[in-house]
Amino acid sequence: MPRCDEKNGTCERTIYVKNPHLDSMKDDILYHFNLGTSSHDLPAMFEDVKFVCVGGSPRRMKSFTEYIAKDLGLADPNAEYPNLCEGTDRYAMFKVGPLLSVSHGMGIPSISIMLHELIKLLYHARCTDVTVVRIGTSGGIGLKPGTVVVTKQSVDAMFKPSFEQIILGKPVVRSTELDAKLAEDLLKCGDDLGQFETVIGNTMCTLDFYEGQARLDGAFCSYTEEDKQSYLAEAYAAGVRNIEMESSVFAAMCKLSNLRAAVVCVTLLDRQKGDQLTSSHDVLNDYQQRPQMLIRHYIKKKLNASKKS
Amino acid sequence: MPRCDEKNGTCERTIYVKNPHLDSMKDDILYHFNLGTSSHDLPAMFEDVKFVCVGGSPRRMKSFTEYIAKDLGLADPNAEYPNLCEGTDRYAMFKVGPLLSVSHGMGIPSISIMLHELIKLLYHARCTDVTVVRIGTSGGIGLKPGTVVVTKQSVDAMFKPSFEQIILGKPVVRSTELDAKLAEDLLKCGDDLGQFETVIGNTMCTLDFYEGQARLDGAFCSYTEEDKQSYLAEAYAAGVRNIEMESSVFAAMCKLSNLRAAVVCVTLLDRQKGDQLTSSHDVLNDYQQRPQMLIRHYIKKKLNASKKS
Repeated sequence: MPRCDEKNGTCERTIYVKNPHLDSMKDDILYHFNLGTSSHDLPAMFEDVKFVCVGGSPRRMKSFTEYIAKDLGLADPNAEYPNLCEGTDRYAMFKVGPLLSVSHGMGIPSISIMLHELIKLLYHARCTDVTVVRIGTSGGIGLKPGTVVVTKQSVDAMFKPSFEQIILGKPVVRSTELDAKLAEDLLKCGDDLGQFETVIGNTMCTLDFYEGQARLDGAFCSYTEEDKQSYLAEAYAAGVRNIEMESSVFAAMCKLSNLRAAVVCVTLLDRQKGDQLTSSHDVLNDYQQRPQMLIRHYIKKKLNASKKS
Repeated sequence: MPRCDEKNGTCERTIYVKNPHLDSMKDDILYHFNLGTSSHDLPAMFEDVKFVCVGGSPRRMKSFTEYIAKDLGLADPNAEYPNLCEGTDRYAMFKVGPLLSVSHGMGIPSISIMLHELIKLLYHARCTDVTVVRIGTSGGIGLKPGTVVVTKQSVDAMFKPSFEQIILGKPVVRSTELDAKLAEDLLKCGDDLGQFETVIGNTMCTLDFYEGQARLDGAFCSYTEEDKQSYLAEAYAAGVRNIEMESSVFAAMCKLSNLRAAVVCVTLLDRQKGDQLTSSHDVLNDYQQRPQMLIRHYIKKKLNASKKS
């Protein structure tokens, strides 16, 4: 249920957990974060969170926090941002002002564990109006390397816009719909910046980086270059512009919990032209900054708008 | 093809890559390890590897390396073991003598990326007779917490002993058979030690930690305690003694590449009695040492046997 504030006429968008069992638990241990409702005062720590950025690598999520803090003047630019998940190396989490930055590892199962615990954390902390963005890297199809793709729909390896969750041994199909308005706003941020190309397109989410993405350079490969190219061409025809490994379950879980969500990934290479990442470290590093730049711009706009209102 | 040594009458078990494209590549970049055939002398670095231990957490794999080094007198006990994947935080890798210790993150996609690159690394380094063991944590069914389970068969959420790999959008079913002799040898090591219970049983491998394992404490739960208990009872009847998230693809990929493989996981709780990990940090830490102790004993026996022969 939305919490409504009669004074300023707004309704706050709340976060849903859909689990009747949670209310009867005395304590909730968020094991992979090394946080819990008894051991930590979650509202005091997190109630002001409005933006959550998630990405694969712990180091990247730390440097993103420092970048945002410095740039938006949210805190002392020389401050140290402690890892709030200290005591575990499953995930890393950093906070500065209304921004929470969390790593999720690689692949659907890894991000799904993190999201279960993140959604419960935001719920326990009584957060409202939270926007969650996955910022990551991907392989592109038919795009110049370095292009940033804002995901329209996350599709599976058969190009279907759904995610299959196995529950009690049986498949349950969930929608991978993302927030269309947020995607448009993010595309606009790319245009505002004008420093790199930003497009909206479908994102294919696979369970594997090599055979699952038709790469020819894994330990196993039973198909030809022609098979690969025709699969990628089919994907392109279905609107797919990039391939990564987390967006489908991310979209499905954010939708179920009423979180405004988007996926913004840079393409590190054009998969129609190759499989290996041969660009220099510096070039790849520059590409990886781009989704961060875009989100920084988005957060800046939102914070300025809320100051004015 | 096995390389045969006529002098001592042994045939060396070689590692297969099943990919005709690899031979035509000038260079092979193992991107997620930050290693490559042009940038590193892989045979010089890795040719003597005989045991590979893999586990989810980078810290645990580092401490395992130190533990083995100290205990087996393989190196200066005060030596520092550098992370061989320095420059990336996707995985961490440590080596001491014939042991390679590698982290794999959480879930099938994460371990699958690591294994593609590990198998290619062992192949490029011309390693032979390699034994790979996953040491990890799991939820038990009908076992006292702290019991170590050596996997007989890795089964999916429908209790089938197979792994479905999506290739070019189509499912390909692979066997998850593990090395039966190795499993027996490892069970024997548990008996030798006599410090904790060790059993052989089937291991269920799921794509999700919460709904996928019938937990009642995720952000979402659409089933009752009774549904959960009846699913776990079905699993138990199918021979399942523990549940984790990597064994199926691990077994399938090791089998395809001719690696002798085993899965050894400790159970952190009995899932029929609960879902949350409420044991103290010290108790959980003690449990997590057990697969390491077992493998240490196995490596010791093997190294002693090879010294004698």
